Amino acid sequence: MSLLGVLGLGLLDPATAILRADDVGVTRGDGCFEGLRIRTDPAGHSTVHKLDMHLARMSRSSAALDIAFDEDGWRSLIAESCASWTTPGEAALKLVLTRGPASGTSTGFLTVSPLPSDYPRQRREGLRVITLSRGVTSDAFAGAPWLLGGVKTLSYAVNMAAQREAERRGADEAILVSTDGKVLEAPTGSVVWSIGRTLHTTPPGATGILSGTTQRLLFERAVENGWAAAESLVSVDDLHGADVVWVISSVRGPVDVVALDGKQRPRVPEVDAEIRSLCGF
Amino acid sequence: MSLLGVLGLGLLDPATAILRADDVGVTRGDGCFEGLRIRTDPAGHSTVHKLDMHLARMSRSSAALDIAFDEDGWRSLIAESCASWTTPGEAALKLVLTRGPASGTSTGFLTVSPLPSDYPRQRREGLRVITLSRGVTSDAFAGAPWLLGGVKTLSYAVNMAAQREAERRGADEAILVSTDGKVLEAPTGSVVWSIGRTLHTTPPGATGILSGTTQRLLFERAVENGWAAAESLVSVDDLHGADVVWVISSVRGPVDVVALDGKQRPRVPEVDAEIRSLCGF
Repeated sequence: MSLLGVLGLGLLDPATAILRADDVGVTRGDGCFEGLRIRTDPAGHSTVHKLDMHLARMSRSSAALDIAFDEDGWRSLIAESCASWTTPGEAALKLVLTRGPASGTSTGFLTVSPLPSDYPRQRREGLRVITLSRGVTSDAFAGAPWLLGGVKTLSYAVNMAAQREAERRGADEAILVSTDGKVLEAPTGSVVWSIGRTLHTTPPGATGILSGTTQRLLFERAVENGWAAAESLVSVDDLHGADVVWVISSVRGPVDVVALDGKQRPRVPEVDAEIRSLCGF
Repeated sequence: MSLLGVLGLGLLDPATAILRADDVGVTRGDGCFEGLRIRTDPAGHSTVHKLDMHLARMSRSSAALDIAFDEDGWRSLIAESCASWTTPGEAALKLVLTRGPASGTSTGFLTVSPLPSDYPRQRREGLRVITLSRGVTSDAFAGAPWLLGGVKTLSYAVNMAAQREAERRGADEAILVSTDGKVLEAPTGSVVWSIGRTLHTTPPGATGILSGTTQRLLFERAVENGWAAAESLVSVDDLHGADVVWVISSVRGPVDVVALDGKQRPRVPEVDAEIRSLCGF
């Protein structure tokens, strides 16, 4: 990473160790995070995309975990970090909030890192995707707030293992599927697909998936531009039948799926270009 | 916490910050841990219970996560820590291994902390327990290693939220249940129950539950002492029908359940005492 900021302390040398051994953010994955896109113009002026949406979601995640959320403190630290980040191009901003040490208050920090090195190729060539079971039923999270559905917690070990499994099988990405065969989400992104001029995504709520900020922005703008939009609980077979399938995340943006479970998918450049543009990519 | 040791560095002041902001142990809950019991005699000599079993499980967890496990390094750090821990009584030893910073090697550390303050009362009075859905089917983990069944990862946010939910409802502890109604495990312990002279626990494997070190030690010793032992996939109704139900973990030990979903359970002191003794408590 290239830049480090800590709530209450400001900017620090990125190599500084900042977390105690008994911070439950590490011992229990007990906390939440957001990943945001920074763009920096040739003059070195940086802007954060969808900052309000990300802070709103982080505030909801914190509330679900009973951790206080200091929005003003975050805005001030983000502004200070952006002012210091002047490398033209794209970068990734991560906000992390943990419940803190066993006896103590929460720990909040942010990092700015260069765009992951495999993103440009993936955006250019599209994603080879496999589907993997998530082990949960598609209605498991209804009335069960302790399962933390829709909460972007730090407990992402299974998400990371699913991505490693995809890579082990020669794919770029995974799409997670419920035990009753419904399409859920990618380990770090939303799944969106088009059929004609309708965009679809999996409904949040009972499915437990994270409501994607870029997916929501896309749907809003798409509807303004003549698309219809729907939340649809579908099977992997239904996904094979879609015109275009994207995995969408805030930093990588929308990337179209060029192979699903080994089956090649034709690319539809004009639709893909329109969706990328609506997402701000 | 009272004592801190870091692999490669030895013992440090417990207040030292040791983790970087980009350690995926905190940003992704990507790593594994063990919780062990230390007993220290009046002369200040400390011993760690079931050290070999815990190191063997941590080695399996690490392998499932593709993180190297330096058993010799851990044994040496644990020995150094034990030699420095001289407070008579019981304490909790935690071993934590993360995949480490984005560019770097794994992070390993241990802490020693006093026994949690509510454990003596819980051991004395028993546990009031509620059942909560875990959202998964009871066979979800078969053939799906990316779901990390049986791996003691740092991604425990849901386990912690389930314990908070239990406390919110006036209980001490939760027992997690699959969507098809089968008893799985407690958020930080195994569930064991007796029917006559047979001890039962949930089978690991397809259920994804963690194989408990104390539960395994208990079953081994119980069989030597005239008990039968079985792995049984049962409903909550079946659990209500058991003679005694325990939640068993390494530091708190076996504690009998005195209320299950609001239904009082008679205590059976002679059986409970025998089980506690077989577990080394």
